[in-house]
Amino acid sequence: MMKYYLMAPGPSMIPERILLEMSKPIIHHRTKAFESVIEIVRGQLKSVFQTKNDIVVLASVGSGGMEAALVNCFSAGDKVIAVNGGKFGERWSTQARKFGLNVVDLEVPWGEAVQIEKFSEVLAKNSDAKGVLCQACETSTGVSHPVQEMGEILKKKPSTLFLVDAITALGISDIKTDLWGLDVVVTGSQKAFMLPPGLAMVSMSDKAWAFNEKAGLPRFYFDFKEELKNLQKNQTHFTPAISLLQGLKIALEMMHEETLPKLFNRHKRLAYATREAMKAIGLELFSKSPADSITAVLSPPGIDGEKLVNLLSSKYNVTIIGGQDHVKGKIFRLGHMGYCGDFDVISLVAATEMALADLGYKNQVGEAAAKATEILHKGLI
Amino acid sequence: MMKYYLMAPGPSMIPERILLEMSKPIIHHRTKAFESVIEIVRGQLKSVFQTKNDIVVLASVGSGGMEAALVNCFSAGDKVIAVNGGKFGERWSTQARKFGLNVVDLEVPWGEAVQIEKFSEVLAKNSDAKGVLCQACETSTGVSHPVQEMGEILKKKPSTLFLVDAITALGISDIKTDLWGLDVVVTGSQKAFMLPPGLAMVSMSDKAWAFNEKAGLPRFYFDFKEELKNLQKNQTHFTPAISLLQGLKIALEMMHEETLPKLFNRHKRLAYATREAMKAIGLELFSKSPADSITAVLSPPGIDGEKLVNLLSSKYNVTIIGGQDHVKGKIFRLGHMGYCGDFDVISLVAATEMALADLGYKNQVGEAAAKATEILHKGLI
Repeated sequence: MMKYYLMAPGPSMIPERILLEMSKPIIHHRTKAFESVIEIVRGQLKSVFQTKNDIVVLASVGSGGMEAALVNCFSAGDKVIAVNGGKFGERWSTQARKFGLNVVDLEVPWGEAVQIEKFSEVLAKNSDAKGVLCQACETSTGVSHPVQEMGEILKKKPSTLFLVDAITALGISDIKTDLWGLDVVVTGSQKAFMLPPGLAMVSMSDKAWAFNEKAGLPRFYFDFKEELKNLQKNQTHFTPAISLLQGLKIALEMMHEETLPKLFNRHKRLAYATREAMKAIGLELFSKSPADSITAVLSPPGIDGEKLVNLLSSKYNVTIIGGQDHVKGKIFRLGHMGYCGDFDVISLVAATEMALADLGYKNQVGEAAAKATEILHKGLI
Repeated sequence: MMKYYLMAPGPSMIPERILLEMSKPIIHHRTKAFESVIEIVRGQLKSVFQTKNDIVVLASVGSGGMEAALVNCFSAGDKVIAVNGGKFGERWSTQARKFGLNVVDLEVPWGEAVQIEKFSEVLAKNSDAKGVLCQACETSTGVSHPVQEMGEILKKKPSTLFLVDAITALGISDIKTDLWGLDVVVTGSQKAFMLPPGLAMVSMSDKAWAFNEKAGLPRFYFDFKEELKNLQKNQTHFTPAISLLQGLKIALEMMHEETLPKLFNRHKRLAYATREAMKAIGLELFSKSPADSITAVLSPPGIDGEKLVNLLSSKYNVTIIGGQDHVKGKIFRLGHMGYCGDFDVISLVAATEMALADLGYKNQVGEAAAKATEILHKGLI
C-alpha cells in the first residue's frame, strides 16, 4: 500500500475531477454540446495565454505543435535562429532543418540560460533571420530562458518572428504572450493543464498571422488557417481529441478557480522550496536559471542519477526522471507542476533524501523535508 | 431519464472497461510499466491488421495518419492515383496535392464503389504512378471499395504502392493486409477500437519501407523510421498519448476475447439487419456497395435528413449523423461498429422509424424494429 507519486517533468498528475469528466460516455463532436465545450475552452485559453488571439488546438503532442508552428510561419530556405541549450532546443533546431529552414544554432551550455548580450550579437549578425526559436523552459535542463527580454528586443524587428516553446512553462509561470511580444507560443496538455498527453495548443500574434499568409511550407493536418476558420464556428477541421478537450474545460475551470496570480505564486513557492530542500542536504542545482516547473539537480559524487531514479520508483513508488544524453546519470529532475501542492513537494524531497541515504550518500535524513516544510509554512518566495 | 446512444459514423461508444482503465492515475511513459503496455499492444495490433509488420502508432487523429502515410512514402512531384468518391477520398487527394504530389483523381460518383475495370484502365494510362490512394470504407457515403481486388492488381506492380484508409473498416471487416497486398493501412482509435479520437495507427509493408528510404517529403513529427526504431525498444519517439494507449491495450484484449472471426461476423450481421430494417419501411440505401461499419440511407421524399438527425438527438437522445457537402439533408448515416450489439441496432432502427413518423413519413412504426429483431434472432447474414 504505497501511494503513487508522479513527480516527473511531465506528464504531471491528473486531478480526479478531470479523470472523472473524461471517463463519461463520449459525445459526438459535430453537436451543439461539443461546440459549447470549445466555446468555453476558447475563451479561457486566451486568459491563460494572456493573449487577445484565438489559440489553435491540435490533436498531437507538443512536438507536433512545435512542427505546426514552423510550417505555418516559414518557407523553405528561411533563416531562423534556434536557441539550443538542451534536448528540446536541439529538437526544434533539427525539426526546422528537416523542413529546409536555414538554421543558425545559438549554442548554450546545458544548464545555462541564453545571455541577452550573446543573443543580441547573434541577432545583429543575422539580421535577415525570419524567426527566433526558444524554449521558455528547457525541460531537459530545468532552465528558464529570458523570453521576456528577448521578446522586447524582437518586438522592434517587424521581419522577425519570436516562436516560444512554452510546453513546460505556460500555465505555470506568468508568461505574458501579447505584452512581451511572443508571436507564437506552443504548449501541450500534460504539464500545467493536468491532462494526459495528446493536445498541442498554439497562439499566433497578428504578426505571425501575417507571416502565415506567405509561409510556403506544405501543411494540411497542421494548417492553422483552416483550424482558425473552424474555431470561429466553435468547431475543428478534423475530428478532435474529444475527451481531452472535455478534460481541458475542467482544467481551465480549476485554474481560474484558483486564479492565475495564485497559481503562478504556488508554482514559484513549490520550486523555491524544492531547490532549498536540495541545497539543505548539500546538493547542487544543475540549472543556473531555474524554472518554476521542474528542478534539475546534480547527482552527488559517486551516486548514479539513474540508480536514484530507479530506487525512488521501486522502493518508494515515486516517479522522477533522470538526465538525457550527455547528462544521463549525472542529474535528476523533479517535477512540481500542475496538480501539485505543498505536501506533494514535501513528500517528494523526503523520498529523495531517503533514497539518497539508501544509496550511501551521507545526509541527515529529514533535513530536506524540514527545509521544505519550513519554507512552505512561511509562504515565502 | 433517456439513455444516450451514440450511433454515428465515429466516434463510436466506449466500453466502461476502457473508460475505467483510462481513468486510472496516469503513469510516466519512460518506464517499464509503460513499455509493457506497448509490447502487448504491438503484438495484438499485428493480428488485427493481419500483418507481420509493426504498426506505427501516432499521437494524432486519422487525418494525421493519412498525412503521415503520404510524407513517408513519396517525394514532391510523384504521381499518385486517388480514388475520389466522397469526402474522405477528396480529403486524401487534396492533402496529397498540398504536399506537391501529382494527383490523378479517379472520380467515382458518391454512393458507388470504384469499378475494377475503370480502375485498371486509369492505372494502365498512368503506369508511372507511384501510389494508389483508396478508402476501404468511404465514411461519407457508407461505401466499401474493392480493396482486395485492387490489391491483387497492385501486387504485380513493384513500383506502385497501395495506400488504404481503413479508418472505418479495420477491426470491423476482414481486411487481410499482407495477403491482399495492402502496403500502407491507416486507421484511427475512435471506430473499431472503441476509444476516444487521438491515435492513428499505420502499417507498412516491406515494399512501403523500401519506398520510405527514398521518400523525399519533409517529415519529423510523422517520421515512421524514427518511430519504428523506438517501437522496437517498446518506446515512442515523442511523448505518446499515454492514456489512449492504455485504453488500446484493453480494446485489443476485448477484440481478441471475442475472436476476430466473431467480431467480423457481428459487424456483418448488424449491418445487414440495419439495411433490411430500413428497406422494410420503404427506404432506399444510398450506398450501392454498403460497408459493415455504417449504413447511409436516402431520406425519403419531403423529409430533410438534417431534421431527422436533430429530432433523433433532441427527442430520443440518439446521435446519428447526416450527409456532408452536396448530400447534406439528402442522406442520414447510422453507425453500428465497435462496442455495438444486437439490441443497440434494434434500438437504433426503432428510434429512426419513430422519428420518421414524427416528421410525417407514412410508415407503420414497429416494422423496422421487427425486421431487425427477426434477422438478428436468426443470426443470418
